[in-house]
Amino acid sequence: MTKAISVGDYLIHAIEQAGVKHVFGIPGDYVLGLYDLFAKSSIELVGTCTEIGAGYAADAYARINGLGCVCVTYCVGGLNALNAVAGAYAEKSPLILISGAPGLGERAFSPLLHHRIRDFNTQRLIFEKVTVAAEALEDPLTAPRQIDAAIAACKRQKRPVYIEVPRDMVHRLCGSIRLEPQDAPKSPPDVLKEALRESASMLRNAKRPVILAGVEIHRYGLQSLLVRLVERSGFPVAATLLGKSVIGELHPQYLGIYEGAMGREDVRLAVERADCVLFLGAFMTDIDLGGFTSNIDVSRTINATAEQVTIQRHHFDGIVLRDFIEGLLKSKLGPRRKLRFAPRSKPKPVKLQRGRKITVRRFFARMNDFLKDDSVVIADPGDSLFGAADLTIHRRTEFVSPAYYTSMGFAVPAALGAQIRRPHLRPIVFVGDGAFQMTGQELSTIVRYGLNPIVFVLNNKGYTTERFIQDGPYNDIHEWAYHRWPEVLRQGLGLEAHTEDELEDALIRAEKHTASFVVINAHFDPMDRSNALDRLAKRLRARVQGKGS
Amino acid sequence: MTKAISVGDYLIHAIEQAGVKHVFGIPGDYVLGLYDLFAKSSIELVGTCTEIGAGYAADAYARINGLGCVCVTYCVGGLNALNAVAGAYAEKSPLILISGAPGLGERAFSPLLHHRIRDFNTQRLIFEKVTVAAEALEDPLTAPRQIDAAIAACKRQKRPVYIEVPRDMVHRLCGSIRLEPQDAPKSPPDVLKEALRESASMLRNAKRPVILAGVEIHRYGLQSLLVRLVERSGFPVAATLLGKSVIGELHPQYLGIYEGAMGREDVRLAVERADCVLFLGAFMTDIDLGGFTSNIDVSRTINATAEQVTIQRHHFDGIVLRDFIEGLLKSKLGPRRKLRFAPRSKPKPVKLQRGRKITVRRFFARMNDFLKDDSVVIADPGDSLFGAADLTIHRRTEFVSPAYYTSMGFAVPAALGAQIRRPHLRPIVFVGDGAFQMTGQELSTIVRYGLNPIVFVLNNKGYTTERFIQDGPYNDIHEWAYHRWPEVLRQGLGLEAHTEDELEDALIRAEKHTASFVVINAHFDPMDRSNALDRLAKRLRARVQGKGS
Repeated sequence: MTKAISVGDYLIHAIEQAGVKHVFGIPGDYVLGLYDLFAKSSIELVGTCTEIGAGYAADAYARINGLGCVCVTYCVGGLNALNAVAGAYAEKSPLILISGAPGLGERAFSPLLHHRIRDFNTQRLIFEKVTVAAEALEDPLTAPRQIDAAIAACKRQKRPVYIEVPRDMVHRLCGSIRLEPQDAPKSPPDVLKEALRESASMLRNAKRPVILAGVEIHRYGLQSLLVRLVERSGFPVAATLLGKSVIGELHPQYLGIYEGAMGREDVRLAVERADCVLFLGAFMTDIDLGGFTSNIDVSRTINATAEQVTIQRHHFDGIVLRDFIEGLLKSKLGPRRKLRFAPRSKPKPVKLQRGRKITVRRFFARMNDFLKDDSVVIADPGDSLFGAADLTIHRRTEFVSPAYYTSMGFAVPAALGAQIRRPHLRPIVFVGDGAFQMTGQELSTIVRYGLNPIVFVLNNKGYTTERFIQDGPYNDIHEWAYHRWPEVLRQGLGLEAHTEDELEDALIRAEKHTASFVVINAHFDPMDRSNALDRLAKRLRARVQGKGS
Repeated sequence: MTKAISVGDYLIHAIEQAGVKHVFGIPGDYVLGLYDLFAKSSIELVGTCTEIGAGYAADAYARINGLGCVCVTYCVGGLNALNAVAGAYAEKSPLILISGAPGLGERAFSPLLHHRIRDFNTQRLIFEKVTVAAEALEDPLTAPRQIDAAIAACKRQKRPVYIEVPRDMVHRLCGSIRLEPQDAPKSPPDVLKEALRESASMLRNAKRPVILAGVEIHRYGLQSLLVRLVERSGFPVAATLLGKSVIGELHPQYLGIYEGAMGREDVRLAVERADCVLFLGAFMTDIDLGGFTSNIDVSRTINATAEQVTIQRHHFDGIVLRDFIEGLLKSKLGPRRKLRFAPRSKPKPVKLQRGRKITVRRFFARMNDFLKDDSVVIADPGDSLFGAADLTIHRRTEFVSPAYYTSMGFAVPAALGAQIRRPHLRPIVFVGDGAFQMTGQELSTIVRYGLNPIVFVLNNKGYTTERFIQDGPYNDIHEWAYHRWPEVLRQGLGLEAHTEDELEDALIRAEKHTASFVVINAHFDPMDRSNALDRLAKRLRARVQGKGS
């Protein structure tokens, strides 16, 4: 039965049905009509301070919820969210960006409407470059199909889509023709069979096989399958940095994060000395490969991603990642190996030394013990990420970080996006001082929606990651009293720590203060760093100076 | 003589020669090599908190200096500055954006380098949409020509350009082949003659002619010519909002800002009842036309812009705006009219009423008297702009505002860009609370470089401009204690005003405090507004609700 419904209502219902409960953004006159419909729907509008904050929040929301949504005004709104959408594209986060636009009627009347850049298509053409679908709803007849197709593409490809709504289309009636739910894509049976036969044979013949799991395991909801494959095969498993926490880090067969020479030596050796490496859902970036310090012989690899299965140097097209893993589960992978691993235990607590200045290494060692079962760790790029990589994550999908696109300023808005979806998880945020200066004002939104993350500002007085590549005065920043943000926001608890006992005291107070956010200004020496950063910077430095490749 | 020079040095020298003394941005590993060269040059690197802040600062710098420059890293940097570049395109501000990029050598080696989106061209393709030239320097042989051509296009068209430098190109040697300075474009003589003959005839026969001057007068440095034309012809002159201050506002023939029914009634009548309107360098936007409440009969218009001369409904191509104005100066425009205007005087000071709550109207009336000869007024979009439009600007080019693209958050970074170029001008900044929450952290950069703007935060607890179009909870924001920012930044003076005597006290203290910035939290009722906003909102509301056109 076809019931008349407006384009705006159709869009909102489609997003609701796809599982979105919160939409992030800032209103503007070209999108006010749509905002009004959202306000009347079951979806909660979350008003942020900035559009880039809305974008990062919705990206984190998408990683946790399976779909996220930003709604902003034309150009001045949309373009300010673009970098977050680009990051979601790079890291496969299913994000919908909805933008208002001038009405079709008023465009003919006068071309110079405010917020316009070159012509009325400019914003859509830009978003085409960073999305898997960019639709402008300019005809009520086709709008439902455009909306359905865009949302389906977003969910299938786990990459962002763009939907533009001219303001005079919002209330236009369209048929409620919803496309049949698209069939899940299927693997071509013979291709799948051939790839499985070859893979199983390689794994059966391997003496020291290892699985390297990446972020697509999480994006496609394959965590349980992965655990079954790991346990049935008896293979050890490592994860990439972007895929950190796709498998519970206390699992006895879990090795740790593989990131070339940048990571832990025991993990590096286990992976690089394996005689067969099974990559599952890992797209291997320069960061994952430790700035190219990785040394994995391609002739010993099976590499299955959502886009392609590659064995050694030949490719199989069209194979669905889930089918491949399910196929491996049914294959004979050799005699079931005995677990060669002692059950993993939590790292030992760090022993506090009164008056000792805090260092990045001891700080993160201490953090391992600070994490609770209800923690979600959110790490900004830089040493916040490199240091946090060694934390032991208790549950799955509890670690959120832009570990490939590495856009600074992600973490504070991401805490907003994560906790608004999972109010019972308390975000533990690690963010550098430079990154906090970019988007730290979203603590305001965190106050507004009654959330309570604990934010550690790793205050090392500048862009420390870069100091190790090439230093100069441009890596310095003006130092803020980060712990005084609660005075501007009229809520929250601000604390400061120079020494280990001050840190300990701050941790105790932060744990108790659950009514609102806590921001801890943690002072580090500008040249202090994690082991991982130390190794990475050496590699990157060579390349900046034109020596490496 | 050809001396070998590196691509990086060539670029920096070309920018220096074009008159740029400060470059705004944030470093990142793909641009560190170039940053190092900048640090060794005569150009000062100004490190901002955010890339969008760098973009707005450089845009304001360009408006004041004739050319501005941003330098950022690949994608995560560039895309965050995109909206500022788009605004510079829309409002014709000559801005150069330089972006680092992965080295050509490393691209072949591995495609998944951090910060990458889709492919290595993605960022350049995006910037092509918002610039008049987008060059990637991928060959040392052609790099000098690409640089010269891009800078020339930027200066000629007064619109932004994009220059991308792969990091392994920075130190590659290129010939120092500088193109001959391009000849200034020339008008086709016969076309010019015909257009001038027709224009002069219309003006001679007009009984009530009027000139409407726009922002291109400023961008192309034609202010003196305009004053001569105004004085020689005896015609009254009005300005557009974007062109505010292209003529000194105390000039006896100056009428005020024309903005349809949104503006002052006497100006509206003078323009709309004229029997010949000479538009000079004005691109007429919906905001300039008061949300289309304008009523100018096109058969009585002569419209000369940098792109085209249009008389009534026919166009002349290729005419240079300067040539057209110079031609008019030499033409007989009728008997020299007697000045019919009394010399303009400053508006009368507002008389303070103790305990009276401040209102937008009385606030801006008081501000008229607060402006000094060394003030530069910077107004963010919204009621900050509409209210500021009625201020009397003493000198030329002293009013900076994104009055067409209307991107919120422009003003605080713009104060940085304006004052770093003209340290002896003290910026008076009007910014709404919502806009301040977007980019107010650039006060940090203002502290870092020792500047001292006075920033009025018009705190009306939300997006008041939108409340008049369509109100809902989405127009509310969390209220900050804006006057407590100095505590976070460890410098500056924070003040608060609810009443007229508190405001008066704050003004006295702000004037005296010249050592650093002053931020004044000025409390207004959420529904208080300027007259202009009241009129504009009525028009826009009709359109949001689908009734207007």
